[in-house]
Amino acid sequence: MQTAPPRTLCSDLPTVTPGQTVRLQGWVHRRRELSALTFLVVRDRSGLAQVVVRDGSPVPPEETTIEVSGVATANAQAPGGIEVTEPVITALTEPAATPPAELWRPSLDVSLPTLLDHAPVMWRHPAQRARWELAAASVRGFRATLDAAGFTEIQTPKFVASATESGANVFEVDYFGRPAYLAQSPQFYKQQLVGVFERVYEVGPVFRAEPHDTVRHLAEYVSLDVELGFVRDHRDVLAVLREVLAGMVAAVHEHAGAAVERTGAQVPVVPEEIPVIHFRDALALVGAPEDEPDLAPEHERAVGAWALAEHGSDFVAVEGYPMAKRPFYTHPWPGDETWSNSFDLLFRGLELVTGGQRLHRPSAYDAAIRARGEDPAAYATYLQAFEHGMPPHGGFAIGLERWTARLTGAANIREVTLFPRDLTRLTP
Amino acid sequence: MQTAPPRTLCSDLPTVTPGQTVRLQGWVHRRRELSALTFLVVRDRSGLAQVVVRDGSPVPPEETTIEVSGVATANAQAPGGIEVTEPVITALTEPAATPPAELWRPSLDVSLPTLLDHAPVMWRHPAQRARWELAAASVRGFRATLDAAGFTEIQTPKFVASATESGANVFEVDYFGRPAYLAQSPQFYKQQLVGVFERVYEVGPVFRAEPHDTVRHLAEYVSLDVELGFVRDHRDVLAVLREVLAGMVAAVHEHAGAAVERTGAQVPVVPEEIPVIHFRDALALVGAPEDEPDLAPEHERAVGAWALAEHGSDFVAVEGYPMAKRPFYTHPWPGDETWSNSFDLLFRGLELVTGGQRLHRPSAYDAAIRARGEDPAAYATYLQAFEHGMPPHGGFAIGLERWTARLTGAANIREVTLFPRDLTRLTP
Repeated sequence: MQTAPPRTLCSDLPTVTPGQTVRLQGWVHRRRELSALTFLVVRDRSGLAQVVVRDGSPVPPEETTIEVSGVATANAQAPGGIEVTEPVITALTEPAATPPAELWRPSLDVSLPTLLDHAPVMWRHPAQRARWELAAASVRGFRATLDAAGFTEIQTPKFVASATESGANVFEVDYFGRPAYLAQSPQFYKQQLVGVFERVYEVGPVFRAEPHDTVRHLAEYVSLDVELGFVRDHRDVLAVLREVLAGMVAAVHEHAGAAVERTGAQVPVVPEEIPVIHFRDALALVGAPEDEPDLAPEHERAVGAWALAEHGSDFVAVEGYPMAKRPFYTHPWPGDETWSNSFDLLFRGLELVTGGQRLHRPSAYDAAIRARGEDPAAYATYLQAFEHGMPPHGGFAIGLERWTARLTGAANIREVTLFPRDLTRLTP
Repeated sequence: MQTAPPRTLCSDLPTVTPGQTVRLQGWVHRRRELSALTFLVVRDRSGLAQVVVRDGSPVPPEETTIEVSGVATANAQAPGGIEVTEPVITALTEPAATPPAELWRPSLDVSLPTLLDHAPVMWRHPAQRARWELAAASVRGFRATLDAAGFTEIQTPKFVASATESGANVFEVDYFGRPAYLAQSPQFYKQQLVGVFERVYEVGPVFRAEPHDTVRHLAEYVSLDVELGFVRDHRDVLAVLREVLAGMVAAVHEHAGAAVERTGAQVPVVPEEIPVIHFRDALALVGAPEDEPDLAPEHERAVGAWALAEHGSDFVAVEGYPMAKRPFYTHPWPGDETWSNSFDLLFRGLELVTGGQRLHRPSAYDAAIRARGEDPAAYATYLQAFEHGMPPHGGFAIGLERWTARLTGAANIREVTLFPRDLTRLTP
């Protein structure tokens, strides 16, 4: 009795000595029937392999899962120089239904609704799958950088008793018969945990009842959150953000090099120091009125273009955003409380990260909450941490999907989200 | 003009050459005023350091954040042999309020409500913090093991259009004016993504409207989910689980050795092969009637005791659970469909993991869903993946909080959850 040889991944086929028996497992990526033979391309998690069927054996339809036992054979025309001949093909499931698009074509030329409605199948296309591989590698680099810098990973609750930062855009849940809300960010919790671990990060879903149907908003997205204590000001936070972005880029190259090629992603170089411009100067630079409270999208693009032209950088931080437009926990700019110790990081002219220094003195929280006409008692559990001693601290949050969209040049954030959720979409 | 020396972490103080100036940042862990001097213990993320105040300078109350500049001085009595003398102490915030418990005492002897109500402060206690450090290290080991084995990290939606596995225990959300539900597990999505990436994992929150107020149930917990394709049966899944557990244990030793000491955690040894017993044999072993559909807690404990006595193992897998008690996607036991190709993994006599092989043929899904009196059309988006070709596959889910509770011997799962959510608790 013979035992089956161990599985060979498609990407390992070129390393097999010709003449050896191999066993592939995967999907029928493509079958091409010629008069004398059939070419079968097998796809597995590692890549593609070519199988040549000369005996007229039937090949199941595309996307059927199969096992192929055969002989590794040198062929200069085959990908990697080795193909499989004399195959015995065993289907592992019933013949697959025809996919809504031909997944073996080099690019997936389908409408957005088709892409999203058939996501479980469409993500199988190698170029589409590569988009998520970039996202996964980025998250891996995010964590690796922070692990190495003494950060502790946290997992904070998504059920909260009240809206995190504002009453708007919050989802309400029936929580055992009373109302609860879904966290719009882990902001309050990551701050409280700076009081415990000093340096924390979280990768997790955040929920925004976003009423706008745009190419860059989702009702649920993955937030890469960081918060750290004992900072001098927001510039220390920005320095950590720089390291994190560099780590994400390094991980993309290290773990998803093939995905970079398949998507044509323009992976940025993160400069040693990210250029910084004050909000006030950014307004002047783009010719906006000096009393504008925010940067319009065209202003962000102009600042991004300036950073590229002047500093050769895909990234630029705009610091000092008006206090009036920032959340109550924002630390003011020392000496001029019109401005804040906060920043937005623009990546290729689009906001990617918001961050900054937070208040840390209990008296400052009391005053800031009262100044907004609210009662500090409503924030009692949050304020506990500050009453019991918090360091100067700050942090930031990166939207994973925005990062991936920008990296791959995707026109719509939904194209890089595994199963997007928005105003109208709850499936698949 | 002098520039401040770089910050020294408390844990690095023993490596500083006596006589050098150092700068610590942290919390006042303890101040002990004697007649001639005051001992100040500083706590930061790395540990504790002793500071000796001889000039009568005031020391802020415990938990206030401070900066201390002083001279590293050898003292055989000090922790690590070095203390800080001639300190200049600068408070970084207002004097801290007195904590609800003395955090400097070796153990945190408080009631569960005090622990939970004051979580942001209570987690600062070194022994309490260490519990979470074990959790964080475990998750790190989980990911590292799977990354090395060709798995892709996924992030799947928490908003779903219908209850994942059953209509019970599901939270309803007001989703832009219509009902949506919170995912009870990423089960359906991780399966669909096996069709894309073959091997996937996810670390994320899951939501159960658990009406039972017990020491081992939460309304929201962290699920460590794994799913992989091209398995022969559930034994291949169990082999991956074994590697994952070994990786978690290795990471605990590597990254949280001090936390093991501080918590007194009994870190298990994961055997090369986890002992397996069939459900039917487990019933016989514990003297339960052969028509019992499940193992009662005392039966689980007895099976755990058997594994320890017979195999010297803290872990035991019970395979073959009755199909009638498993979800519809469960793969039956070949040759006897009374049983299933699924397992529970018991850790020290308590269920920690559920896993197994899933159905993968579309016809099998159709039959299984109809057999439960349901309409396959209700599962249309899920079933897409199977119609378009899925491999034999399976997976498992580990509850992070149950793992940490068992590791540390915590009596209640809430003690190892940063901010637990249950029937009555939504804050802090």
